[in-house]
Amino acid sequence: MNKGKLRIIPLGGLDQIGMNITAFEYDNDIIVVDCGLSFPEDDMLGIDLVIPDTTYLEDNAENVRGLVITHGHEDHIGALPYVLQKFKTPIYATKLTMALIEGKLSEHGMLDDVQRQVVSVGDVVRLGSFSVEYIRTNHSITDACALAIKSPVGVVVHTGDFKVDYTPVFGDPIDLARFAELGSQGVLALLCDSTNAERPGFTNSEKTVGQTLDNIFSDNADKRIIVATFSSNVDRVQQIINSAERYGRKVILEGRSMVNIIRTAIDIGYIKISDGILTDISKIKDYPDEKTVIITTGSQGESMAALSRIAANMHRTVSIKPGDLVVFSSNPIPGNEKAVFKVINELSLKGAEVIFQDAHVSGHACQEEIKLIYTLTKPKFAIPVHGEHRHLMAQRSLAIEVGIPKENVLILSNGQVLELDENSAKVVGEVANGAVFVDGLGVGDVGNVVLRDRQRLADDGIVIVCLTLEEGTNIVAAGPMVMSRGFVYIKESDEFMEEAREVVLTALEKISDKNITSRNKIRDIIKDALSGFIWRRIKRNPMILPIIMELEE
Amino acid sequence: MNKGKLRIIPLGGLDQIGMNITAFEYDNDIIVVDCGLSFPEDDMLGIDLVIPDTTYLEDNAENVRGLVITHGHEDHIGALPYVLQKFKTPIYATKLTMALIEGKLSEHGMLDDVQRQVVSVGDVVRLGSFSVEYIRTNHSITDACALAIKSPVGVVVHTGDFKVDYTPVFGDPIDLARFAELGSQGVLALLCDSTNAERPGFTNSEKTVGQTLDNIFSDNADKRIIVATFSSNVDRVQQIINSAERYGRKVILEGRSMVNIIRTAIDIGYIKISDGILTDISKIKDYPDEKTVIITTGSQGESMAALSRIAANMHRTVSIKPGDLVVFSSNPIPGNEKAVFKVINELSLKGAEVIFQDAHVSGHACQEEIKLIYTLTKPKFAIPVHGEHRHLMAQRSLAIEVGIPKENVLILSNGQVLELDENSAKVVGEVANGAVFVDGLGVGDVGNVVLRDRQRLADDGIVIVCLTLEEGTNIVAAGPMVMSRGFVYIKESDEFMEEAREVVLTALEKISDKNITSRNKIRDIIKDALSGFIWRRIKRNPMILPIIMELEE
Repeated sequence: MNKGKLRIIPLGGLDQIGMNITAFEYDNDIIVVDCGLSFPEDDMLGIDLVIPDTTYLEDNAENVRGLVITHGHEDHIGALPYVLQKFKTPIYATKLTMALIEGKLSEHGMLDDVQRQVVSVGDVVRLGSFSVEYIRTNHSITDACALAIKSPVGVVVHTGDFKVDYTPVFGDPIDLARFAELGSQGVLALLCDSTNAERPGFTNSEKTVGQTLDNIFSDNADKRIIVATFSSNVDRVQQIINSAERYGRKVILEGRSMVNIIRTAIDIGYIKISDGILTDISKIKDYPDEKTVIITTGSQGESMAALSRIAANMHRTVSIKPGDLVVFSSNPIPGNEKAVFKVINELSLKGAEVIFQDAHVSGHACQEEIKLIYTLTKPKFAIPVHGEHRHLMAQRSLAIEVGIPKENVLILSNGQVLELDENSAKVVGEVANGAVFVDGLGVGDVGNVVLRDRQRLADDGIVIVCLTLEEGTNIVAAGPMVMSRGFVYIKESDEFMEEAREVVLTALEKISDKNITSRNKIRDIIKDALSGFIWRRIKRNPMILPIIMELEE
Repeated sequence: MNKGKLRIIPLGGLDQIGMNITAFEYDNDIIVVDCGLSFPEDDMLGIDLVIPDTTYLEDNAENVRGLVITHGHEDHIGALPYVLQKFKTPIYATKLTMALIEGKLSEHGMLDDVQRQVVSVGDVVRLGSFSVEYIRTNHSITDACALAIKSPVGVVVHTGDFKVDYTPVFGDPIDLARFAELGSQGVLALLCDSTNAERPGFTNSEKTVGQTLDNIFSDNADKRIIVATFSSNVDRVQQIINSAERYGRKVILEGRSMVNIIRTAIDIGYIKISDGILTDISKIKDYPDEKTVIITTGSQGESMAALSRIAANMHRTVSIKPGDLVVFSSNPIPGNEKAVFKVINELSLKGAEVIFQDAHVSGHACQEEIKLIYTLTKPKFAIPVHGEHRHLMAQRSLAIEVGIPKENVLILSNGQVLELDENSAKVVGEVANGAVFVDGLGVGDVGNVVLRDRQRLADDGIVIVCLTLEEGTNIVAAGPMVMSRGFVYIKESDEFMEEAREVVLTALEKISDKNITSRNKIRDIIKDALSGFIWRRIKRNPMILPIIMELEE
């Protein structure tokens, strides 16, 4: 580790899993930007959540000066309760972001253990050799910020997730002037959001959705309206409330996170709503259908979310009636398409009309906005972040287009240590990184062996052979019993299972003839015989688990 | 069952699973249009394929006069080898379609058992009370046809999957004149493809892809090009070959279905390729990279397909080099997005440039084309087919827009029996329908119990408790042993597993105190004790399987 150098270490966020967390290190000072979680990929069977591997930070816990958070989305704050159990450090975040973090910490009973400081845009936080300035941006959640991270070797700008919105619903447009000032003073490196780097043009203003919603409300004055959106998109919910007020409807919030986040936003004054508009779901029957709007979670087709339960007729209060209008004010995140379409089909089968994708804009900068930020900040080095490899490569092209020399665009992988000084940047090593699985109350207990087993169990099930031998011998005292779960054949009385038992008996005879007594060997012989039989007969490959018990004399 | 009525019975194709098969019945005559399979949904764990439930046809096998096939896609022909094992009936299909069917039947060793007749557009097949006329359409596979099904109560037009392509790559445009003639003679009902019924406008001609491909080949003259597309899209492959010839490249086909289908198409003269252009993959090293194009399967990110193996460095001959260009001449089918993006990221990580989505057009009719077919055929009844419920509803709106009375647009579900005569149409009943799972060599052996077990095993794994009791008593002769697979804790030596064993021992003491000897009761007590313990401790719910063996005295 070289003295007098700045090290940037992305511990997550540069792959399809997308948990955002980046460490900045200078001598004995480390600061951490964001601390996100992710939701499991298809092959992470039974996993609830995924959090980043923070071994490097735990090993250097005495150097960690603080966690600076850019905004309140799960992929930027969700891992905090888990990571802060491993090492303690203060959190810095804007008002709404901190309110959401506090909600999480309370749920984990950790609120009193963690030092917190609410910051405002323009504030500068001093953390060891670093100072961090919060700069206003726009995003699909209020109070999102970029960071200007001042280190002894230069200023690094981290955009967080952002878009350029000249007409935001709440607060002011992104502080482009400050980006420009930083640019003229000299920016060593820019870490810029890559999510939409493949999309040409400009992302539309959040305000355009308000117009669309108004049109929908005015065209459907005779229907009950249900709008599904992201609970964290406070501005979107504000606009749905605005349309509701304008068209004389009561507003019902539904879904745990919708209620939690929007109530928090109302409490801190980030949502404006007239008295008497908000109504509890238990009172929904007091109003005519066409005088209500339900704002609900479930826009991604999540099977346990309110909208999915409504669509499946499993919701305690609301069921779909013919003539209901359901608006998806959202786009499916890649991987969720089929789940979303399933919900749409269910809603449509029950007679609801569904409006899909019209009432949404992205929260991320498209190509022209990314180029704008590059042009204003004029960084020496470009480090695309927040995206899969294909997105990082798309931003790379944009950076080169606006004049960053090819060799100064650095495409990193999670865990790589990039060392910078005023003139140079190079990867000097790698630290532990990757996905830590949260399964129930266990963090990191499930590893790849368990996942491999689950995949095999899911594909072909398990066949269990149980027998009791007289201690130390190969004399069968009880069994063999052959049972299965998740296997093609489920009844022990099936002819096939009977044959399987015969196969085991034949194997046991061989074991007896050859006088084999090693338990491991006996297990292997049974396993081979049975798996060979099953494969030959039905071309399946279930997990085979021979269990041998000892009968003590 | 009423005499003198036409019954239309969709046995599949009207849901997200999308196996197309529809029966037409008049008195003692049944004909079946298409016989498709589907690939398993996410919750169909371990299933290889899904085929339709054809119980109704099996029960009425003596009435089935023939299988008339519209085109050669898997979701229209894939279930033939399975269904034809249940009942025999002749198959009618166009040249390429039949060649693909014959390939399937040979693989299943059934070629000699099935009567087959190749038909051409304009041909009329007489089947009992029905006659079926084949009408040329366009689609993403050559030789696709619509059917005019003449019954004693009127003519039903079934579009199959289609688009309107005025400039097809092979053969002629869709025979709009024949649709118009049928319309002026009177069409009782139209069964029309709904896949793109949500999309406004017209689907672009296949030929536009040829121009895009030419541009790509001309812009990348110095690179090796790999193009991934659907192996069944013979015209697409023809266009890739055309570009290759034009720009002086050798063509390599890769992936089992790509080689099979394209060789079949070449054999029957549906693909034109100059001598010496096609080269085997084993000879790829004989040519400079920039003089080759590899046409491969895997455009949907299928993990075992050639492109995925190439991307993962697991292909026996081809590996990605920096500077390679990979073109996805395809769109991801909903549900495949993440898998496709994973492959793109892997390719990009290895230095390949990736072109995605530009070089593709759909094979299905958009809204204006659907309206065109309605306007030409002027059906009395509209029966949207081939789509999820949301697609059927979208077509319903189009049908109403062009003047079909609301009450004459019939949205059916799989298995519903629609009875028609000259003046009326109504649902009169329902027959068996749904998904039959193919798992290895087993057809229909895996049911919902097995799938539920697999889901539970996948989510939380299994904990097995094994013990041997003296026969008829509750005296423990061996065990208990506690083992697990796919569970959070995997080692039997774990503290947690030790505690679990203690829990079982305590339960056994109670059993002994209360003098319980019923094996079922003992199993229940062990199960309850253990699942309670595990839930309290780690909030997990694994499958618990107590196994009791008897020690014979």
